Amino acid sequence: MARFVRQTRRTAGQDPGALVHVGDVRQEATCLTLFRYDAASVDETHPDLACALPRDTAPGVLWLNVDGVHDAAVVEQIGRMGDIHPLLLEDIMHTLQRPKLEDYDSLLFASLRMLQYHEERREIEDEQVSLVLSPSWVISFQENPGDVFDPIRERIRDGRGRIRRAGADFLFYSLIDSIVDNYFVVLEHVGDWVEEVYERVTRSPSQSDLDEIRLLQRELLYMRKSIWPLREVLSRLQHGDSRLLAPETLPYVRDAYDHTVQIIDTVETFREMLSSVMDVYLSSLSNRMNQVMKMLTIITTIFMPLSFVAGLYGMNFAWMPGLRSRVGYFAVLGVMALMALGMLYYFRRRRWL
Amino acid sequence: MARFVRQTRRTAGQDPGALVHVGDVRQEATCLTLFRYDAASVDETHPDLACALPRDTAPGVLWLNVDGVHDAAVVEQIGRMGDIHPLLLEDIMHTLQRPKLEDYDSLLFASLRMLQYHEERREIEDEQVSLVLSPSWVISFQENPGDVFDPIRERIRDGRGRIRRAGADFLFYSLIDSIVDNYFVVLEHVGDWVEEVYERVTRSPSQSDLDEIRLLQRELLYMRKSIWPLREVLSRLQHGDSRLLAPETLPYVRDAYDHTVQIIDTVETFREMLSSVMDVYLSSLSNRMNQVMKMLTIITTIFMPLSFVAGLYGMNFAWMPGLRSRVGYFAVLGVMALMALGMLYYFRRRRWL
Amino acid sequence: MARFVRQTRRTAGQDPGALVHVGDVRQEATCLTLFRYDAASVDETHPDLACALPRDTAPGVLWLNVDGVHDAAVVEQIGRMGDIHPLLLEDIMHTLQRPKLEDYDSLLFASLRMLQYHEERREIEDEQVSLVLSPSWVISFQENPGDVFDPIRERIRDGRGRIRRAGADFLFYSLIDSIVDNYFVVLEHVGDWVEEVYERVTRSPSQSDLDEIRLLQRELLYMRKSIWPLREVLSRLQHGDSRLLAPETLPYVRDAYDHTVQIIDTVETFREMLSSVMDVYLSSLSNRMNQVMKMLTIITTIFMPLSFVAGLYGMNFAWMPGLRSRVGYFAVLGVMALMALGMLYYFRRRRWL
Amino acid sequence: MARFVRQTRRTAGQDPGALVHVGDVRQEATCLTLFRYDAASVDETHPDLACALPRDTAPGVLWLNVDGVHDAAVVEQIGRMGDIHPLLLEDIMHTLQRPKLEDYDSLLFASLRMLQYHEERREIEDEQVSLVLSPSWVISFQENPGDVFDPIRERIRDGRGRIRRAGADFLFYSLIDSIVDNYFVVLEHVGDWVEEVYERVTRSPSQSDLDEIRLLQRELLYMRKSIWPLREVLSRLQHGDSRLLAPETLPYVRDAYDHTVQIIDTVETFREMLSSVMDVYLSSLSNRMNQVMKMLTIITTIFMPLSFVAGLYGMNFAWMPGLRSRVGYFAVLGVMALMALGMLYYFRRRRWL
Amino acid sequence: MARFVRQTRRTAGQDPGALVHVGDVRQEATCLTLFRYDAASVDETHPDLACALPRDTAPGVLWLNVDGVHDAAVVEQIGRMGDIHPLLLEDIMHTLQRPKLEDYDSLLFASLRMLQYHEERREIEDEQVSLVLSPSWVISFQENPGDVFDPIRERIRDGRGRIRRAGADFLFYSLIDSIVDNYFVVLEHVGDWVEEVYERVTRSPSQSDLDEIRLLQRELLYMRKSIWPLREVLSRLQHGDSRLLAPETLPYVRDAYDHTVQIIDTVETFREMLSSVMDVYLSSLSNRMNQVMKMLTIITTIFMPLSFVAGLYGMNFAWMPGLRSRVGYFAVLGVMALMALGMLYYFRRRRWL
Repeated sequence: MARFVRQTRRTAGQDPGALVHVGDVRQEATCLTLFRYDAASVDETHPDLACALPRDTAPGVLWLNVDGVHDAAVVEQIGRMGDIHPLLLEDIMHTLQRPKLEDYDSLLFASLRMLQYHEERREIEDEQVSLVLSPSWVISFQENPGDVFDPIRERIRDGRGRIRRAGADFLFYSLIDSIVDNYFVVLEHVGDWVEEVYERVTRSPSQSDLDEIRLLQRELLYMRKSIWPLREVLSRLQHGDSRLLAPETLPYVRDAYDHTVQIIDTVETFREMLSSVMDVYLSSLSNRMNQVMKMLTIITTIFMPLSFVAGLYGMNFAWMPGLRSRVGYFAVLGVMALMALGMLYYFRRRRWL
Repeated sequence: MARFVRQTRRTAGQDPGALVHVGDVRQEATCLTLFRYDAASVDETHPDLACALPRDTAPGVLWLNVDGVHDAAVVEQIGRMGDIHPLLLEDIMHTLQRPKLEDYDSLLFASLRMLQYHEERREIEDEQVSLVLSPSWVISFQENPGDVFDPIRERIRDGRGRIRRAGADFLFYSLIDSIVDNYFVVLEHVGDWVEEVYERVTRSPSQSDLDEIRLLQRELLYMRKSIWPLREVLSRLQHGDSRLLAPETLPYVRDAYDHTVQIIDTVETFREMLSSVMDVYLSSLSNRMNQVMKMLTIITTIFMPLSFVAGLYGMNFAWMPGLRSRVGYFAVLGVMALMALGMLYYFRRRRWL
Repeated sequence: MARFVRQTRRTAGQDPGALVHVGDVRQEATCLTLFRYDAASVDETHPDLACALPRDTAPGVLWLNVDGVHDAAVVEQIGRMGDIHPLLLEDIMHTLQRPKLEDYDSLLFASLRMLQYHEERREIEDEQVSLVLSPSWVISFQENPGDVFDPIRERIRDGRGRIRRAGADFLFYSLIDSIVDNYFVVLEHVGDWVEEVYERVTRSPSQSDLDEIRLLQRELLYMRKSIWPLREVLSRLQHGDSRLLAPETLPYVRDAYDHTVQIIDTVETFREMLSSVMDVYLSSLSNRMNQVMKMLTIITTIFMPLSFVAGLYGMNFAWMPGLRSRVGYFAVLGVMALMALGMLYYFRRRRWL
Repeated sequence: MARFVRQTRRTAGQDPGALVHVGDVRQEATCLTLFRYDAASVDETHPDLACALPRDTAPGVLWLNVDGVHDAAVVEQIGRMGDIHPLLLEDIMHTLQRPKLEDYDSLLFASLRMLQYHEERREIEDEQVSLVLSPSWVISFQENPGDVFDPIRERIRDGRGRIRRAGADFLFYSLIDSIVDNYFVVLEHVGDWVEEVYERVTRSPSQSDLDEIRLLQRELLYMRKSIWPLREVLSRLQHGDSRLLAPETLPYVRDAYDHTVQIIDTVETFREMLSSVMDVYLSSLSNRMNQVMKMLTIITTIFMPLSFVAGLYGMNFAWMPGLRSRVGYFAVLGVMALMALGMLYYFRRRRWL
Repeated sequence: MARFVRQTRRTAGQDPGALVHVGDVRQEATCLTLFRYDAASVDETHPDLACALPRDTAPGVLWLNVDGVHDAAVVEQIGRMGDIHPLLLEDIMHTLQRPKLEDYDSLLFASLRMLQYHEERREIEDEQVSLVLSPSWVISFQENPGDVFDPIRERIRDGRGRIRRAGADFLFYSLIDSIVDNYFVVLEHVGDWVEEVYERVTRSPSQSDLDEIRLLQRELLYMRKSIWPLREVLSRLQHGDSRLLAPETLPYVRDAYDHTVQIIDTVETFREMLSSVMDVYLSSLSNRMNQVMKMLTIITTIFMPLSFVAGLYGMNFAWMPGLRSRVGYFAVLGVMALMALGMLYYFRRRRWL
């Protein structure tokens, strides 16, 4: 449950723009990776902090990736190099932000949530990725090493696709797009999981299935909370008229926007399926309870009259007809059998059996 | 359940615009059909891929129908002939798209879901149909052979109605309209089915009815997910000012739009009826359970006191009045009968019987 | 249930604009009634089809009422006389349309649903009424003879009110208004019915009440489906700037619009009341069940211990204290009575009795 | 329930604008009160109908209050004097209107619902108040004598506050404001009532509480239906640019608008509290039922095995070990006590006791 | 419950703009604190009422904080000094306002709700804070001493951050921001509390947990009612073009707006979690009830047939086979044991045990 509660800030009373890291505590050193490429060449380095963003006016696109945002000094220095507003730096370090887009004329800032599915632990991990776009560079801030950008790195290195020929805005789009695409991967796993739970519940529901349904519901709720603002971000990117986005890039942004709409659709479908699985679970439970009650009623209804008859002939009256007869016992047994059969027939006719 | 889960993409990390088929795997060769017609003549051929779209400037309308979108080479070549944007080709091959409309000035692109009802299997099949409209031609991409366009083909061949006299935009509209119309056919079958389940549940509800209700609910949910974006498509066609649509065609588009609104209405009505069938089911179940409980209570309430009286006279006290009397037994039997009758009278007065 | 399912079309694949009657099959001949009036005079005839709409340029207003829309030849000829677009004629003959308004510049087309309450059958009948307004005439198409327009006919004949002095647009409004007004009449009956069911359920709920509640819910759902689009029609009439509506007529249209809003309000109120009646029903059922369970528990709790004591003294041990005592039996009876009284006191204290 | 049903009209088929009173039937004579005031003087009379609105051009504000709208002749004559549109007069006499605002350029018409709480009967009474504003006068129509305007009359007589110095529009605002303010008074009583029911349900819920909750829910539903359109009225007054409202009056209108928003808020809060009271009621009921079931189960589970053992030793076999032993009876009693204690221990461990 | 009901006004019939205190009754004297600062210096005093707002034209920013708004004379005098509209003064003294923003050109007025969490009492206290911004000063009105502004006071005294260098509008923003930030603090405590209840309910649910869930639901409902209008206030501040807000301040306002959105998100998450905790509670209750019923059924089903057999052999027939046999008793016991075992096996197979 903890993951869903932690979305709060511990910085009340801080000066706005003060750089305080909010999120899981970390100790690792920040790691910088710099790509510099144009249509003809590509260059990949791990620069020092001091020259993270080279100020030369060489053409081409710069992409600086920052792994680790817990060190205020590092973030501040990069911010100073890139002329990033203190409030944006504050957002970068508060890693529990709601996805959003900020347009500072000379800069475009996007904060997103990157989801990753861990197969073995059956867990969705999420971290905040902040992207800053200027006319000539993109800076991406991540909380942890390990991301979904490897295909983009490959494409830059190989020069496949449009990316090497296009500008920084296309890189900015590509990073967002690969985050969006990864939601599909996560959803595929969640979909398999939902189907698995469905199969299990249909066959034989158990208490643990209920917990699993609730866990899935929470995960989907969480995804929904990440993807809805992401949709807004892309919608504003698509309609907003930031002068940093080239017109050729807009159809791609629209495409990514369509994907977020489809993700939302899928998340909603899964939520509806889960609530239908829940229904199946509950109705199978109540079905079972009904059978328990029927069992109780049938047993009671058959044996109470029989026991009564037995009790009747167990009374100690001196004068009771049939007690001395040789066939009395068997006659009573026969009557009892008839009563039981009659009851059973009645139950069968009323479809209780 | 599988159909509802599969709405995901397996292409995360791909270059945007890369042509990868997403959907059920297929092996059949792609089949092309070309209509070329004007008011006076009609010509129907199965062209080679190389000359699928003849580049001559002869007047008249061209309609190229493509059955099978799993072969990237074919789609790409057609795309090159028709000057279709790579992102659109990607959408054509990803056959699990949400219906949408894209306006690329010189081209109009629509992606729809075509439903077909299979009577014997009681199943709704759906496939994606992508339509591309240029000033002089329409290309339609389908996943499988077999579609709902035969009446249009007949009308083109016979020269009935407006279609031969109108332009490519009217053909474009007609294809969409026949897909929309077919939703009515599917809904009619679904409506009959809903009514059948209703009749059955009202007469004698069973567990299998519940499964059927849930299946119908899922089918309607799925239809709703297909038709809502279709409504948006037609709404945008109707209001948008694509210069590819002639003003004479707009009333027809508005008509098709009205039909989607009516389909949505009907789907919602069916959903409400299903949830009312569900209510009938549940209330009849709980009604039955209540009768079971009443039965149990009545039996218990009648026989417990009687058995107690019998048990009383079964005690082995040496001195008990009446035991030796000749009429004791019958007196007790009489008292018991009176008790039972009193109980029955009480139950009848409280309307439990 | 059938009424709610039938809202589908059997014309998929038809040429748009093809005239095919959709609705209940009928055989009666179409009946035409023509009013021609101005402030000074009124003339009422049953014209032949050939001269249904006289083409002379005499001043005054023409109102042609058509009873029966199942005969395509008749509808088509009238359509040709009035220059009505084929798509509108199609809408007139498809009698299961959603209410709508179409503005064809020279013509205004409205399709409405007219409700009538049949007291003796306790049934709401509905039929489709299509109205076409041109600058000088109104044509009204109905499915059946018998309508809610008699007060308007009376006013035209008598020259009461504004109608004889106003133009065709005021007649058009008056026809719509009298359809809207009739919803109030139907609602009044439905309201009485709801109240009656409420009274009955409060006094003594039965299974048949449940069916009646469900029937009423369906009727209200149906009314809601008719009135919402009607509200849209009037809203568009009021705001739209059709040049066929004189400015003096607009306040009247706004008035009719207000009435539809009030009808919607009332329908929603009735729906809420019905669901509250449903609640009363369900809670009284569960209340009764609770009383059944309490009865069961009380009986069991009193007689089980008593029977146990009786069973104790029914054991055949040779040595049991008190069996031979003269007062043993009575002592045990006394103990039993005390036990029963103690139980009853306990139940009373816990408020179970 | 009747109050909620009666919102229908009995005038279907009437000529629009015909003056027919709709509402509770009344016989009292209409009573007119006329205030004429300016900053310097105030004059209060009960004029004849003939000179209700003096036509002189003396400066100052005229306020004509009309108690009773059931007499068509009176309403019509006043309407003629004030140049009020027939449709507005119709609205004034139909006392079951939805609150609304009509702007007829030279006149502003508002129809509101005035609520009054009757402490002793615990009932909310409502009546319709119609206000007409012209540049120099206000006419207020009420159904009954007795209203919430006395503080305004006092302020006019005493010359306290702004009212004597301001124009007719401020009077118009003040009348609306005092109606809005009175909703707070009603809500205060309803709030006390809700709290009282809450206390009672928490202590010991009974069937009558349920009825009271439902009654309160209906009252709040009714208030909500009155206040929502009132909010629209004030919103339109505030944003609309009627030239009858002086700019100085607008902040006051905005203030009244804020109050309606707060009333809506409070009504929604009360509704949520009521549904929470309902939850408490239901959960306490089901809690009680659960205790009944536990009681039943515990009694059955303890005494059934004991009775079985007693029955065992009540069998008439000739050879049964222990029957002849002197301690057999006591041994069996001991075993029984152990069984009972074991059961009780088991129940206590499972927290059923 | 009282806190949620009291949101009403006791001033119906008052002259609008009349200064009447609404809220908890208080007696303490009003306490004034005045900050006067610019980039270079800061001066903090507790001025007399007479010279609360010095009229000199010295540069710098004035911040007058007023603790206690129950004294109409004080509020009125301050209002006169600051030229505040009487309606605003009325709003300041009605301490149960819905948060709102009013733009009076020369003044900007904001009314907010400040929440504070009292750890030991586990209670959220709220009070109304009204802020008035003019070009050169800010006045803040609070109900009680003690607030969340201390960090701002510290920053003013120390000259840390932007605040001393910026204008009155930045102070206005900072006060709002610190109120918004404090919602996070409150939410953190509420989050911990929710998690604690969740843990407890998962382990062993009890009636008192239910009360706690309901209390939390009410608190969150209350927070939601405070934060939604606060969001509107900030949205209007951000988009509205009050000339009192410097352009440099707008990004900060946007930041605060984002925080309110995130607070709403978190409140909604907590509400969903609570309703999920409620589900866990209810399902564990019904699970327990099911086990009770199964227990009852198993006991009954096992012992009823056994008791019947015992009763059979307790009958006093003279001729019953086996009664005289030496092994009869043990044979019957064996049969009984077999019956019981068979039943247990049956229950185990049906997974009831």
